[in-house]
Amino acid sequence: MFNLNFADEYILCEGNSTNLECCLECSIQILEATYGRTNSIVCPHDTVFNSTEYNYTNSASTNVSNACDGKQSCLLNSNNDLYDDPSPGVFKYLNVTYECLQADLRNPTACKCVGAGTYISTVPRRKMTEKAYIKGSAFPPLVDGKLRLYSMRLCPYAQRTRIMLAHKKIPYETVNINLTEKPEWFLEKNPLGMVPVLEHDGKIVYESAICNEYLEDIHKQNSVTPTDPYRRARDKMLLEMNSKFTTAYYKALQGLKGEDANSLIEAVHASLVPLEKAIGERGNFYGGDKPSMLDFLLYPHYERIEGIRTGFHADFMPMDKLPKLNAWVSRMQTVPAVKETMFDAQTHIDFYKSYGSGKTDYDIGLQ
Amino acid sequence: MFNLNFADEYILCEGNSTNLECCLECSIQILEATYGRTNSIVCPHDTVFNSTEYNYTNSASTNVSNACDGKQSCLLNSNNDLYDDPSPGVFKYLNVTYECLQADLRNPTACKCVGAGTYISTVPRRKMTEKAYIKGSAFPPLVDGKLRLYSMRLCPYAQRTRIMLAHKKIPYETVNINLTEKPEWFLEKNPLGMVPVLEHDGKIVYESAICNEYLEDIHKQNSVTPTDPYRRARDKMLLEMNSKFTTAYYKALQGLKGEDANSLIEAVHASLVPLEKAIGERGNFYGGDKPSMLDFLLYPHYERIEGIRTGFHADFMPMDKLPKLNAWVSRMQTVPAVKETMFDAQTHIDFYKSYGSGKTDYDIGLQ
Repeated sequence: MFNLNFADEYILCEGNSTNLECCLECSIQILEATYGRTNSIVCPHDTVFNSTEYNYTNSASTNVSNACDGKQSCLLNSNNDLYDDPSPGVFKYLNVTYECLQADLRNPTACKCVGAGTYISTVPRRKMTEKAYIKGSAFPPLVDGKLRLYSMRLCPYAQRTRIMLAHKKIPYETVNINLTEKPEWFLEKNPLGMVPVLEHDGKIVYESAICNEYLEDIHKQNSVTPTDPYRRARDKMLLEMNSKFTTAYYKALQGLKGEDANSLIEAVHASLVPLEKAIGERGNFYGGDKPSMLDFLLYPHYERIEGIRTGFHADFMPMDKLPKLNAWVSRMQTVPAVKETMFDAQTHIDFYKSYGSGKTDYDIGLQ
Repeated sequence: MFNLNFADEYILCEGNSTNLECCLECSIQILEATYGRTNSIVCPHDTVFNSTEYNYTNSASTNVSNACDGKQSCLLNSNNDLYDDPSPGVFKYLNVTYECLQADLRNPTACKCVGAGTYISTVPRRKMTEKAYIKGSAFPPLVDGKLRLYSMRLCPYAQRTRIMLAHKKIPYETVNINLTEKPEWFLEKNPLGMVPVLEHDGKIVYESAICNEYLEDIHKQNSVTPTDPYRRARDKMLLEMNSKFTTAYYKALQGLKGEDANSLIEAVHASLVPLEKAIGERGNFYGGDKPSMLDFLLYPHYERIEGIRTGFHADFMPMDKLPKLNAWVSRMQTVPAVKETMFDAQTHIDFYKSYGSGKTDYDIGLQ
């Protein structure tokens, strides 16, 4: 009976209560309920900005299910007594995901009746299309308070920011862009015409490294920036060094069928030597024991190398020459935030082939 | 009798005393003495890192001159009782500039006798050459604790960091580099082979924006970075936008004698429209009332436009099209830190002409 397309997510700030309601002849089905805090956006409060980590939630599912399941309306309470206090001193919220169900499901949308009380914040789980918006398409309306990422599914730069959002567990919605024929409204967001772009409460941020720094600045949880100024400077220098690799990478990719393909591929290897040296000095990740901002900014281009290796029979990162970098890529692919954003080698191959054909398929793999 | 080439600068941390000495038959001449703090490097102390501004000094010249002038040796004391306390709660230092003088000055160097006490830090005012170091030249030895800037006198990117150093009143020495024939040891400092590069206590920082951020991070005085995260993000986006201008700028400069010079110059105007719009919205400076980090990063290329206007009869920034940007450049040239780093239009013209001739004169204007 469950259908996530029609689920709604409700946030109720600590200390408040409200009625959760479905229309007549519909009944509530609680999918999940948690009490605590996993981000700093919703239910803002002084106590939130004094903390840096928001990982503390209790499940409140049983309690809320008991109160609501099968009913047309039920009272939600958001307080420490009901669900215990997972993070004393920090202002919390109740997060409820639920559906309104009809017996025959012939018309599930008609069943929704969002008539919540005064203190409720709505974060509807809208079913947005993954398909790329193209020139001439209508602008997808913004939702108050909802962070939006303008992205392109296979873009390595957008992936940098998708990893950051996943790592920080920041709720957001995605609007994918056809970068060959851009929607007119997209160029109003970013005159440079590139993804990623973040939009939130009238604020626009673009350029992947700037987006990630901005997210780090406004969402303190799960920080990935080194605190030492010299380490920060060195990481930025390594990122600058990495841009030599990305230049060589795209040049080689374009010349794979040409006569000088081998020398172009050699240039990619050479550009990677400083990165191989650095990861050798630093440990499992560029951040040492844990992935840092630099790991997130570097990773996406390297994800694509396996596809180039198998699909185009060109090895941009030979194991014998760059063993540590290869090991780092495998290690990165076990990091939860990275796993959430990955595409498999075959999808990258198919995408690059469509790009090479002059008709890039931005919706590759979608139904 | 004064000759600044032979002056020495001495730093004596608060609470210490030492003898200032010249050799036999030489006598001390105090040039200047201050008590307080104008930077965060020397005499490090816990109290220093809690403060953000270091502009407080008293003149201690009269007091120190009375104690030392004409003597072969004198006792220096660094304490609040003697010079009053210009910044209570902050650890201070006495900064003395003096010469050792002989009656006939036939051999002034023989007169120096640096035999200072245990608690003194030496910051010798070495006479370094302004001339560019070239391939094959010997590495100029580092001085313990002294910050060094690898620069090129006319390089706009190095000027970004020179302005920052001047604004923050950070003591440093300059090593200019011949960028056509680079000294071998320079590529060990920065494998990208570009200026500016900072070197301090074995730490190397390159790329102008990274250098300036690093200086801001480690020297809290005279901060120029916006505190609001979104403002910081917007400034970085504007800097990114400015890179469209610098690309158009160099392209136009190279094509000034070609047939399509006019369209290249038009492209420069077009690239400047977003910058004109932004300064119009922000006020006197990109930082509003006061110059900010962004002003310092943007300014150097615009300084050169007057030279291009008069020396090459090409107007990259026409007054009628970009009035606010023109006014901003004039305003920037009244900022003390900018004035310290400027070259006049004719020097820029001469430098560009030498560059265009294929034999760049890095020592233009020097004796």
